[in-house]
Amino acid sequence: MSHNTFSRRELITATGAAAIGAVLAQVGGGIVSNAEAKVETGKWPWPYEKLDPAKTAELAYNEWYRVFCGAAVISSIFSQLAEKIGEPYKSFPVDPFIVLEGGMAGWGTICGSAAGANIASNLIIGPRIAGPECEHGHTIGSNIMKWYSETDLPVYVPKNPKANKEKIVRTASSSPLCHISVGRWMEAANKPLGSPERKDRCARVAASTAYKLVEDLNAWKDGKYKETVGWVAAKSVGITGQQNCTDCHGSNIPTAPK
Amino acid sequence: MSHNTFSRRELITATGAAAIGAVLAQVGGGIVSNAEAKVETGKWPWPYEKLDPAKTAELAYNEWYRVFCGAAVISSIFSQLAEKIGEPYKSFPVDPFIVLEGGMAGWGTICGSAAGANIASNLIIGPRIAGPECEHGHTIGSNIMKWYSETDLPVYVPKNPKANKEKIVRTASSSPLCHISVGRWMEAANKPLGSPERKDRCARVAASTAYKLVEDLNAWKDGKYKETVGWVAAKSVGITGQQNCTDCHGSNIPTAPK
Repeated sequence: MSHNTFSRRELITATGAAAIGAVLAQVGGGIVSNAEAKVETGKWPWPYEKLDPAKTAELAYNEWYRVFCGAAVISSIFSQLAEKIGEPYKSFPVDPFIVLEGGMAGWGTICGSAAGANIASNLIIGPRIAGPECEHGHTIGSNIMKWYSETDLPVYVPKNPKANKEKIVRTASSSPLCHISVGRWMEAANKPLGSPERKDRCARVAASTAYKLVEDLNAWKDGKYKETVGWVAAKSVGITGQQNCTDCHGSNIPTAPK
Repeated sequence: MSHNTFSRRELITATGAAAIGAVLAQVGGGIVSNAEAKVETGKWPWPYEKLDPAKTAELAYNEWYRVFCGAAVISSIFSQLAEKIGEPYKSFPVDPFIVLEGGMAGWGTICGSAAGANIASNLIIGPRIAGPECEHGHTIGSNIMKWYSETDLPVYVPKNPKANKEKIVRTASSSPLCHISVGRWMEAANKPLGSPERKDRCARVAASTAYKLVEDLNAWKDGKYKETVGWVAAKSVGITGQQNCTDCHGSNIPTAPK
């Protein structure tokens, strides 16, 4: 008989429903029932294995030229975990996060690398409402915003840079915003947005951010990530925001209603 | 024989490998092989059925009080599509997008509702690199940033608002940034960040954004979404950014290097 000629019912009768269930359970890695997939994606932390920060940074650097900053950070980590662990990383749709590019579809808001890091850390460790063992997703994400704002970027030097081969200008953005981060670098380097140098710079920023995120995730995996959230704007200034109000407001800082 | 007493090999021998394959293929909705799951999540557009904007807005309003703005927008749409269609919506991990709250972990960058709308439209319709039939994911997302900036928000009035029951102040943010959007509303309403009125306002903004996104997705589904990207900062001003430079820069607008 051809494998097309029997019905599901016939097959279940022939082998017994319990047997089918056992196959489904035993084939394991190859098959995920919806119920199992739900458990895998909806239960945190997701399985994580420590990664090599430099290898991750290389992957992010190269992925930038395919899917740009935000998706490159997510891809550099998830592609390795898909290989080492499998689901839920294998089926996670990374490419749509290309929209994080240019501060969300080019609007210059949050740097995609910082956004991608926040999304990746929260996907892996979990949303802060999922329980105390998931709180570090938010913490690592938030503290990467601070690191991003304060660090002379890019830190990471790729093995085969596509531009800035001799040296690269490094600038602190004092902000997690794409527009301010890239604008300050463009001014210091005197390079336009469309230049190979600016593209290499942003690819290196993605690589640097992926490197930092993997360092933090590895520390978390080892139970050694002990930082708390370093900046809680709502508490400090009564409104969401970054730390340095004068950077945009000058001396004319509005007061939030009490 | 108990269903624990036979090995996978015995069962395969008993029924024939082809038969097992047929079961796996035929059980269909209940089982997703990794290969199939990969196709489902990695092939765009994802299946979409038209949704009711008002029902979606209600869901987003209520979800705000559980997962805040960004995840509420995604959840309001994905929860309905999970029910109507199933995968890949059922297994998509929505809750980690709670980190979009307060402009990404409270840092006041992009409004989570706008970010959630961009992520949802790109997940459903696809990344712009996936082919011409996927370009509207980016377009709808980008144009929602413009709509968000220009509209007196919140537009949507929930059935059972938790505050602002008589009336609510509506403000145009002139920006997709959380800090500016919520700051302008707080100033006009004279309400602090922690007030029930401000929370209701942001929940209504999530609801309004979900409403708008479903209108656009429904038009796209009908082949009637004909808009192109309305704002390409890189072309217009040589740097990523929003449209109204003077809003932050005043008259002192830097020029991007050429």
